[in-house]
Amino acid sequence: MAPNHGSLLYEGKAKCVFRSDQDEKVFIQFKNSATAFNAIKRAEFEDKGRLNCQISSCLFELLEKQGIPTHYLGVADDCWMVAKKVEIIPLEIVLRNIAAGSLCKETPIVKGTELEPPLLDIYYKDDQLGDPLLTDVRLEMLKLITPEQRSTLENLARDINFSLKLFFNQIDLILVDFKLEFGITHDRRIVLADEISPDTCRFWDKRTSDPEARILDKDRFRQDLDHVLEAYGEVLKRVQGACAKPQKCL
Amino acid sequence: MAPNHGSLLYEGKAKCVFRSDQDEKVFIQFKNSATAFNAIKRAEFEDKGRLNCQISSCLFELLEKQGIPTHYLGVADDCWMVAKKVEIIPLEIVLRNIAAGSLCKETPIVKGTELEPPLLDIYYKDDQLGDPLLTDVRLEMLKLITPEQRSTLENLARDINFSLKLFFNQIDLILVDFKLEFGITHDRRIVLADEISPDTCRFWDKRTSDPEARILDKDRFRQDLDHVLEAYGEVLKRVQGACAKPQKCL
Repeated sequence: MAPNHGSLLYEGKAKCVFRSDQDEKVFIQFKNSATAFNAIKRAEFEDKGRLNCQISSCLFELLEKQGIPTHYLGVADDCWMVAKKVEIIPLEIVLRNIAAGSLCKETPIVKGTELEPPLLDIYYKDDQLGDPLLTDVRLEMLKLITPEQRSTLENLARDINFSLKLFFNQIDLILVDFKLEFGITHDRRIVLADEISPDTCRFWDKRTSDPEARILDKDRFRQDLDHVLEAYGEVLKRVQGACAKPQKCL
Repeated sequence: MAPNHGSLLYEGKAKCVFRSDQDEKVFIQFKNSATAFNAIKRAEFEDKGRLNCQISSCLFELLEKQGIPTHYLGVADDCWMVAKKVEIIPLEIVLRNIAAGSLCKETPIVKGTELEPPLLDIYYKDDQLGDPLLTDVRLEMLKLITPEQRSTLENLARDINFSLKLFFNQIDLILVDFKLEFGITHDRRIVLADEISPDTCRFWDKRTSDPEARILDKDRFRQDLDHVLEAYGEVLKRVQGACAKPQKCL
């Protein structure tokens, strides 16, 4: 059931953000829509919103307990999260532990290659430009963040990767790569925002070596594989088995 | 007339490289074929080979006189260059003085913006991968060059830009951006290779402010504008007016 929310602040491809009765708090609704390849491919998956909301909530709570600042405040209902209102920094920070996806289309690095140290790529979050990869110099030229903020983002992203990689390993999931977005709060602090879910991460199941069966993330949708929802459900089951139930917050 | 060349060593989109009677010397034939958008768009332009060969020869001689090491040895005939045999480093070094082309598709930087200092972008030269842009870390990961070689390439590219920008300014051409390729000679020296021509540079004519008329480079072909050959011819005329005639070499 939707919480008692205010007007729509922002609608993205996978989430809607609504006002609450407090200026610094928002309600985030996780949608069932799935998009890929910069929204060229679209579909609806009944229950995806709930799965991603619950997975994200568990992971944000885990990170908060480890001292990582996030926008997360609690869950309001199945597919509703309560979060600090932030101004999203228009950058996508991608952490790669194993080569997959666009990295293998843009370099001769073979899919499955272990990346040590993990590769951190920064993309400009702009649908019209197709979320282009940024070089160091281009990032500086855009003046979206200060060098200090950049350093904060990169350090947080590496800490988050360290923590999540260990966590997922314990539940037999390989964290191949994932995308993070950060935001700036009312009081000018940088916090992890957006979501952490099979929409934004690549997970490979350690319990099978079959290259298709092991995929437990949005690549099933991108590659037209079946059982998309079951894969997301399996991730939630394992995450919930290792975490406390997300805290209700209204 | 073709010089007395040996067997074909390499055929690219715009040039063929042939053996000579000496192991460290090659003949390079400039072709009339034009390609754009990673060879999706193709055409033949009668006389383009000669124009690019003569423009490149003048510019290589100019750079050699200023102490820039190049592969250039001389011209053999209208569309034949004699050059040191090199192993091409599979990187494209792009110098940008003014924002145009892919930079404006991949960032919000507006076409025509002056870039000071000039922007140096490095791409991986690989047609199958679509010549992707490389970040600093991706370039390191590919281990194509040592950090010392990278520094040599970047310094040479900036020196070349400094020199060419001044030269073209004197003949009323704005050097908007250009692509360089480097090679390694028999004796392991890094030299400028490939070509410098309206195929690899963007030139805007200072004698007109009309945004279409001022284009004197391959953008005329990319954008389906007429008078492609006339534009290349105008560049050659101005270059030859300011340079000595390229030295014959057989």
